[in-house]
Amino acid sequence: MTEPSENNTPSRRALLGWGGAGLALGAVAAGGAVAATRAGDDAEPAGTDTGAAIPFHGERQAGIATPVQDRLHFAAFDVRTEDRDAFVQMLKDWTEAARRMTAGQAVGDGAYGGLAEAPPDDTGEALGLKPSRLTLTIGFGPSFFDKFGERFGIADARPEALTELPKFAGDNLDRDRSGGDLCVQACADDPQVAVHAIRNLARIGFGKVVVRWSQLGFGKTSSTTPDAQTPRNLFGFKDGTRNISGTETDRLDRHVWVGEKDGPAWMTGGSYLVARRIRMHIETWDRTPLQEQEDIFGRSKGEGAPVGKAKERDKPFLKAMLPDAHVRLAHPDSNGGATILRRGYSFTDGTDGLGRLDAGLFFLAYQRDPRTGFVRIQRNLAKDALNEYIQHVGSALFAVPPGVRDKDDWWGSTLFGKEA
Amino acid sequence: MTEPSENNTPSRRALLGWGGAGLALGAVAAGGAVAATRAGDDAEPAGTDTGAAIPFHGERQAGIATPVQDRLHFAAFDVRTEDRDAFVQMLKDWTEAARRMTAGQAVGDGAYGGLAEAPPDDTGEALGLKPSRLTLTIGFGPSFFDKFGERFGIADARPEALTELPKFAGDNLDRDRSGGDLCVQACADDPQVAVHAIRNLARIGFGKVVVRWSQLGFGKTSSTTPDAQTPRNLFGFKDGTRNISGTETDRLDRHVWVGEKDGPAWMTGGSYLVARRIRMHIETWDRTPLQEQEDIFGRSKGEGAPVGKAKERDKPFLKAMLPDAHVRLAHPDSNGGATILRRGYSFTDGTDGLGRLDAGLFFLAYQRDPRTGFVRIQRNLAKDALNEYIQHVGSALFAVPPGVRDKDDWWGSTLFGKEA
Repeated sequence: MTEPSENNTPSRRALLGWGGAGLALGAVAAGGAVAATRAGDDAEPAGTDTGAAIPFHGERQAGIATPVQDRLHFAAFDVRTEDRDAFVQMLKDWTEAARRMTAGQAVGDGAYGGLAEAPPDDTGEALGLKPSRLTLTIGFGPSFFDKFGERFGIADARPEALTELPKFAGDNLDRDRSGGDLCVQACADDPQVAVHAIRNLARIGFGKVVVRWSQLGFGKTSSTTPDAQTPRNLFGFKDGTRNISGTETDRLDRHVWVGEKDGPAWMTGGSYLVARRIRMHIETWDRTPLQEQEDIFGRSKGEGAPVGKAKERDKPFLKAMLPDAHVRLAHPDSNGGATILRRGYSFTDGTDGLGRLDAGLFFLAYQRDPRTGFVRIQRNLAKDALNEYIQHVGSALFAVPPGVRDKDDWWGSTLFGKEA
Repeated sequence: MTEPSENNTPSRRALLGWGGAGLALGAVAAGGAVAATRAGDDAEPAGTDTGAAIPFHGERQAGIATPVQDRLHFAAFDVRTEDRDAFVQMLKDWTEAARRMTAGQAVGDGAYGGLAEAPPDDTGEALGLKPSRLTLTIGFGPSFFDKFGERFGIADARPEALTELPKFAGDNLDRDRSGGDLCVQACADDPQVAVHAIRNLARIGFGKVVVRWSQLGFGKTSSTTPDAQTPRNLFGFKDGTRNISGTETDRLDRHVWVGEKDGPAWMTGGSYLVARRIRMHIETWDRTPLQEQEDIFGRSKGEGAPVGKAKERDKPFLKAMLPDAHVRLAHPDSNGGATILRRGYSFTDGTDGLGRLDAGLFFLAYQRDPRTGFVRIQRNLAKDALNEYIQHVGSALFAVPPGVRDKDDWWGSTLFGKEA
């Protein structure tokens, strides 16, 4: 253990890792993880996959095509300042903090803690922990443009795709768990690292933004790594067998990344994120016969094979499934080819007032355009047999800009202009 | 991947691991983890520490002196049946399920899923996951004896130590997050495994018990492994430096395990668990100067050294600390030697209505007698400087019986009699 005043000095290994981040620029989709050590942890060897650092700089933001980490802390913020310069400065401060935290370093440029008379630069609970593949991904919501478009001089930059999602059949949305001017998705293999990151961003943003809602997720329900075992949701079924993987450049370009011609220019290389808090009525589900469960999904529970097939990855024959089977209705072939990259997590937030677990799926999906992605598919799911067992209780949409390219770049620079 | 019907057959490796559990009997305090494979996961090599199985059988229940796992799902249940036989049968069913789940197997004796016409024996979301050092620890609350002591013929067996905790200065308890007739503490290195375990016990108990409240914890705040790095709480401070370790047999016998002479007989080898949900006002804390934070705790933030000392494990000189410093007031020397085994976790349950993170410490402490353990210490903490930044919002006490000794034994057998 080093003294507090030395804790912030990047270790030699961390510096090497950081150098590696530069080299890996442009290889973000492959999620190349570089070894690094969280400051204060020199004694422990880095390099295990789950402990490594994901490069922060790149053409795209990390946390989208990056192999899915184990844990999530997602926060939606509302903006409280009407001062454009103060807001842009906060984005720059956030970027610098994100750069350090994703590399496994404490927030703050000097020694840890700084002056004894001042609050510490870093809240401290992640000291000694590894970078844990932390990614931080920022997005701007429709309400941000509603409220600040004119004032911040960015009204003309509002993407057509960034309009509030329509109401869907069965929606029972809680306003307090929906919307948000900004979002930050923190994913890491260690929840303490993800929580630490959101908390420190909230702290840095004090007076300029306030947390509107936040969600912890503990079990990834989708994989963007095709060779990995497909995760299971809280209904016990495998999910995301044919999800877009981080290495499928063609599918990413077609379905996930905003292209040059899509417009507006500041979103080129970005994506759109739909977040939905989906409560699962697991107690009811758990009393449903196996055959009915499998009919509803259109897959077997154990293996995850589509109806009539033997293996999980066998091509589904949709017409063999019931007309209201979930897999059938959600499949691209039933939606004019619509495809989204799913990155959701399970949640369990204690108990509701009726002795039932408040559990479900915090659904996160990235797409090139929500109107031809999530909206298209979700409309088709109005007749989903699964709807008897689930309810959408939270909803949000965010425009996720391209990546922070280098140490002089910052979150939102393409929107607010590099000169700002 | 095997077919569903084969998923429940314990793999050869799992069977070997299970044999190991028998050999390790009595070595529970050392927490010897044996390799095992969750059914359906034969392809993946077992044996990493975090994936291994903790023996379920033993003189003590696992999950107390066991090296602290990374994640927690804690559930308090209320009993809804007045039928003693039905309740005892549920305890036996729970035991059998716990035996299987801690070994990494699915619930249910036959093939996974059983009949297509019946609900599956196991909810399925942990299929393919490793045992993940899952421990399940059961306890009985004061209200269990209040409500069912006479009816179940166990009124005379009520321990004197099992009386409701007194009200402490500053308590602001939420009834809906306090108390409970029963509790199950599920700890594991994978949260999905812990959540799966609680959920399946709740499912098995349907009609006999109902979940009163539950709490997820993500960052252990105490270690029972002296060589491991001391974890940090959400105030960024190391906690539990001098916690009782799982290998300190003397201190465990003196402070944690109920002795033969303590009575009642059914509790010999058991312990008492105090659970407190402690909300931390982290936004206020984060604006407090470093010096003040360190004064409040009585330790340095980075290294964790006691006031005036250089290293975390240096013996604290209490009189060098402010009279209201947390470490000073909580220290055994300030409490007539009172010592408890702490096993708490951090939590973050989204956001409160005021844009603040609903975060804090889910404090869990085991002791030989709460009256000379937690109650004694907590009374002394009435003048704790930390109280300005925390609030106790949930509270519960449970009598935790000794371990399940072998495959014919079951949770609560010492209370309800083996013949039942």
